[in-house]
Amino acid sequence: MEYRKIKDEDDDDHDVTSDLENLKGKSHTVTSSNIAMIGPGTNEITNWKRKGVVTCALTILTSSQSILIVWSKRAGKYEYSVTTANFLVETLKCALSLLALTRIWRKEGVTKDNRLNTTYDEVKVFPVPAALYLFKNLLQYYIFAYVDAPGYQILKNLNIISTGVLYRIILKKKLSEIQWAGFILLCCGCTTAQLNSNSDRVLQTSLPGWIMAIVMALLSGFAGVYTEAIIKKRPSRNINVQNFWLYVFGMAFNAVAIVIQDFDAVANKGFFHGYSFITVLMILNHALSGIAVSMVMKYADNIVKVYSTSVAMLLTAVVSVFLFNFHLSLAFFLGSTVVSVSVYLHSAGKLR
Amino acid sequence: MEYRKIKDEDDDDHDVTSDLENLKGKSHTVTSSNIAMIGPGTNEITNWKRKGVVTCALTILTSSQSILIVWSKRAGKYEYSVTTANFLVETLKCALSLLALTRIWRKEGVTKDNRLNTTYDEVKVFPVPAALYLFKNLLQYYIFAYVDAPGYQILKNLNIISTGVLYRIILKKKLSEIQWAGFILLCCGCTTAQLNSNSDRVLQTSLPGWIMAIVMALLSGFAGVYTEAIIKKRPSRNINVQNFWLYVFGMAFNAVAIVIQDFDAVANKGFFHGYSFITVLMILNHALSGIAVSMVMKYADNIVKVYSTSVAMLLTAVVSVFLFNFHLSLAFFLGSTVVSVSVYLHSAGKLR
Repeated sequence: MEYRKIKDEDDDDHDVTSDLENLKGKSHTVTSSNIAMIGPGTNEITNWKRKGVVTCALTILTSSQSILIVWSKRAGKYEYSVTTANFLVETLKCALSLLALTRIWRKEGVTKDNRLNTTYDEVKVFPVPAALYLFKNLLQYYIFAYVDAPGYQILKNLNIISTGVLYRIILKKKLSEIQWAGFILLCCGCTTAQLNSNSDRVLQTSLPGWIMAIVMALLSGFAGVYTEAIIKKRPSRNINVQNFWLYVFGMAFNAVAIVIQDFDAVANKGFFHGYSFITVLMILNHALSGIAVSMVMKYADNIVKVYSTSVAMLLTAVVSVFLFNFHLSLAFFLGSTVVSVSVYLHSAGKLR
Repeated sequence: MEYRKIKDEDDDDHDVTSDLENLKGKSHTVTSSNIAMIGPGTNEITNWKRKGVVTCALTILTSSQSILIVWSKRAGKYEYSVTTANFLVETLKCALSLLALTRIWRKEGVTKDNRLNTTYDEVKVFPVPAALYLFKNLLQYYIFAYVDAPGYQILKNLNIISTGVLYRIILKKKLSEIQWAGFILLCCGCTTAQLNSNSDRVLQTSLPGWIMAIVMALLSGFAGVYTEAIIKKRPSRNINVQNFWLYVFGMAFNAVAIVIQDFDAVANKGFFHGYSFITVLMILNHALSGIAVSMVMKYADNIVKVYSTSVAMLLTAVVSVFLFNFHLSLAFFLGSTVVSVSVYLHSAGKLR
């Protein structure tokens, strides 16, 4: 309950996190040199290890995100412009991509796969995810006319279903029936874990509210799946180059957002007004999470990403019990159990 | 929410239903002639049909039970002795068993398998389920010192797990991993569907409360599984004979309960004091449900019984929306979805 309340407040205040969360899907770079160094052609065990490492990294980074929110809330600071923080996250990821690339160039030399030069044919699809997220973020301002913040948190779980459906349709990858069962359970389990005494209000959402929620879920799912398609289209292409171009467009779109949404505040109070140590930590965390998402897209897939962020949501609540004396509800236990069974079914139901 | 409230009140008042529900496990006879006539040796399709018919009958009868409770609550009558009603249910089932047997004798003649005569070796185990339920019903009076009625409703879902575990241990039947996953989900789904704003209190249950809840779940699960073992031990033995003996002991144990619990009320106000038309309907319904449970035990198993009564719980809530203008909660939708997936997994996960 307590945990959920904070997540809700988070949306009420419309702080950096909810916006940065949306950006995660289009965030891509390389964490540090050792993962980046592993070229294609390594054996299956290395692939599995790599998949495991990036999945764990994403889970841990996503959990610590929410912890940071709670922590920063306690300090009571939220005076900066969300759009500037988003812009800095993209810039940081861009810089990390370049850093990783320079190390690779020094070791391996510039090759066809790791050169920064690109073709129109390769780059033309890169602005799509950034554009989708911008559109979704704009919609987010309007949906609050129809749904309250806790209701929006509940409806956001539709993302799980939309990701699964679009993953099937666009990437043409099959999930087994057992895995689909698991995916439906993941959505139910996450929602159950977030239930509180006011959750029933979401059932009174009007038709336009439902439509917007579904459209937003589709936009978010589409952006994620599209990013995976872009990254996987050229398997031998270095992930850092792909990320670099994605982030360049991310920077550009966020620059536009600064002008549209926060021009006055930035012009009057400066670009870095209201920044604190925690803001810096959060930007760092979001940049690294973005990189982890990108790695998961390259070496695993959107389904793994959804599982990883869902489990992170539950982990955060458990950690918060120790850090902030939160109480876990019965609904949380039930939801966590359902999510755990869902994770099991996803692996047990693998198509042979 | 509304639906649940009524279920809770039901326990608060300690009316006939909660007691009769406990009796269901030891209730056994034959519904009507046509099912009873089907002898052993019929082909697989007939077996499946029979299994389907008895499962549907149990589901419908269990759903209508709760509807009857709500209906009778509205009429505001509950002045009779619960123990006398239980006794009459056992007597009615006994009478129906005999009726079915006389029809069979007339058609097929008296054989080794359908004669009423029994041996000490066959009959010695028949009092066990009745004794287990009596013990469980006595415990039920004490547990309310530790748990409130809505909390007890939640804890009763432990029956699902205990039945699964004892089914595995005592009957030595294997469930596949997927089916176990489904069984855990069934428990979570049913509990989720019953969640209300006060459900979290159950987490504060003290250790003695938990122990009693677990002991009661084990007693209930053990009685169910033991009944299945008794009935299935002699597959060719006519179910009506097996039921007859079970119900004879049921009558005996309930007669003891009348003396212990309601002697004064029955002596002063008479055996049938406070009976109404609805009471008669409920007794009829419970007798038929008991017969259906017995059929499920003979032709299917305890797992099917648990699924069937769980689905009945959800059906009741949906029907109540139309009959009594109830509102369904978000938790109910989530729980129902989880239960539906669980039903799918039980059938998809069948061991080959």
